[in-house]
Amino acid sequence: MSEVAIVVHGGAGRLPESAERIERMRAGAAAGVEAGHAVLAAGGSALDAVEAAVVTLEDDPQFNAGRGAALTEDGGVELDAAVMEGTGRAAGGVACLQGVRNPVRAARAVLADGRHVLLVGAAARTFAAEAGVELCEVDWLATPSQREALAGGASGWAEGTVGAVARDQQGRLAAGTSTGGTMGQRRGRVGDSPLIGAGTWADDGSVAVSCTGDGEAIIRIAMAHEVEALVRLAGHSLEQACAEALAELERRGGHGGLIAVSAMGEVTARFSSPSMTRGWQVGDGPVQTEVGGR
Amino acid sequence: MSEVAIVVHGGAGRLPESAERIERMRAGAAAGVEAGHAVLAAGGSALDAVEAAVVTLEDDPQFNAGRGAALTEDGGVELDAAVMEGTGRAAGGVACLQGVRNPVRAARAVLADGRHVLLVGAAARTFAAEAGVELCEVDWLATPSQREALAGGASGWAEGTVGAVARDQQGRLAAGTSTGGTMGQRRGRVGDSPLIGAGTWADDGSVAVSCTGDGEAIIRIAMAHEVEALVRLAGHSLEQACAEALAELERRGGHGGLIAVSAMGEVTARFSSPSMTRGWQVGDGPVQTEVGGR
Repeated sequence: MSEVAIVVHGGAGRLPESAERIERMRAGAAAGVEAGHAVLAAGGSALDAVEAAVVTLEDDPQFNAGRGAALTEDGGVELDAAVMEGTGRAAGGVACLQGVRNPVRAARAVLADGRHVLLVGAAARTFAAEAGVELCEVDWLATPSQREALAGGASGWAEGTVGAVARDQQGRLAAGTSTGGTMGQRRGRVGDSPLIGAGTWADDGSVAVSCTGDGEAIIRIAMAHEVEALVRLAGHSLEQACAEALAELERRGGHGGLIAVSAMGEVTARFSSPSMTRGWQVGDGPVQTEVGGR
Repeated sequence: MSEVAIVVHGGAGRLPESAERIERMRAGAAAGVEAGHAVLAAGGSALDAVEAAVVTLEDDPQFNAGRGAALTEDGGVELDAAVMEGTGRAAGGVACLQGVRNPVRAARAVLADGRHVLLVGAAARTFAAEAGVELCEVDWLATPSQREALAGGASGWAEGTVGAVARDQQGRLAAGTSTGGTMGQRRGRVGDSPLIGAGTWADDGSVAVSCTGDGEAIIRIAMAHEVEALVRLAGHSLEQACAEALAELERRGGHGGLIAVSAMGEVTARFSSPSMTRGWQVGDGPVQTEVGGR
């Protein structure tokens, strides 16, 4: 039995203004870690652990995923998520999903169904409903604080995308990511999170990765797959690969962060933005969380 | 002034039944090559050449893109396309687009706008209309032969996805891909074609790639970006990289093909399916086309 590991992120962005808010975000990340670790400690799969962690973070309204997500330009909520497991590279993603409480569960259902990898829009919600995924009122997902932010003219990068990567007792890897996108985004916009290879990637032989940040720039460097390619093809260490991918993101004018776990159980969380909420637990070690402090 | 090059594909799949059909597909591919080459010979950009070639192929109803595209399970037409240029890695994609004659023009408009990389569904059509892209009746895109095929129980992989890659006089690279997806597909399904890194990728320093085949399997190996990573990180030749990516696709249970052009102007068209329609022209050489004959 090899060592289990889980890492979560609650998005890259600015450093929160208050110590109290930082503490709340750390507590949120810790809850995600604990949900994932409980699955791993019980012998569950990395994929189940990632789903459990992301569900916990989606349900926390302070993160930009599930309830509390950033709003579209006209005040709507369109959610994106993906999951991937690294053994058979099974993957599922949903984008522009409305009225589903936990988009990562819809992504998992796409993966389990196996027919397609990415479903978008109203058809994705129909699929989720047929698969037994919990629906909700579209408006329930929009919190008062996000409505105030949009009304106040907030736009662009919204902190708080969430993600998780895990390694289970069998050495399997998995990754998952979930987001509401950018504040005030155009209807129909899809960022990196639900795109396999951009925001989310897993391969048991090398690494599992979940990204956050400037979604369009992350797509243009295929960041999650690039990290894996740097490990597999260029022989980079996990830390080198993540640092190089973030440097390339910067060269392309983007900022962000990522979390990753390697086949050997190494974990990392790196970012080029001022701050990234993150938490992790390796083996029976303590739950650790950080917000700023690159 | 360095040598220009253009390669197009009209999809991987079965070998057409009749010699007459093979000749028609070769003629279609030749028209795509000629449209792209005319741009390159006049000093135009690789991106403009790719767009011109793909527009020509979309307008040809024998290919599964634009008019003549495969139909969804309920007889609809949902179109996907992407373009990417390799200098600044600017990219644009559209998915589940309805009622637009040339989806690649909508993808190009997303690239030109620069705000987002991928737009889907009704919002993508609204964006295209605002950008001045030609709209059409949704039903005009569905040809009688595709309606007959769906009514006859056809489902799954539909041959005829189209794509183009080009190198211009300045050595710039670009790639573009366009498809109607798979016959009888679920509404809202997005395959590899419009996804940057999966079906479409370009980088001036290494290669431009457009893929065709089992879309879900292509996404799970990030095939277009994998080819580029094999050239850039593993030092593979263009041919080695494409062969290795196709071998990986086979190991993951998928079949398909790809076209690519390198920074040095080398071109290739490879496939693991029984057939792939393709055409190419390098410098002032002849327009060449092939269908079967791996």
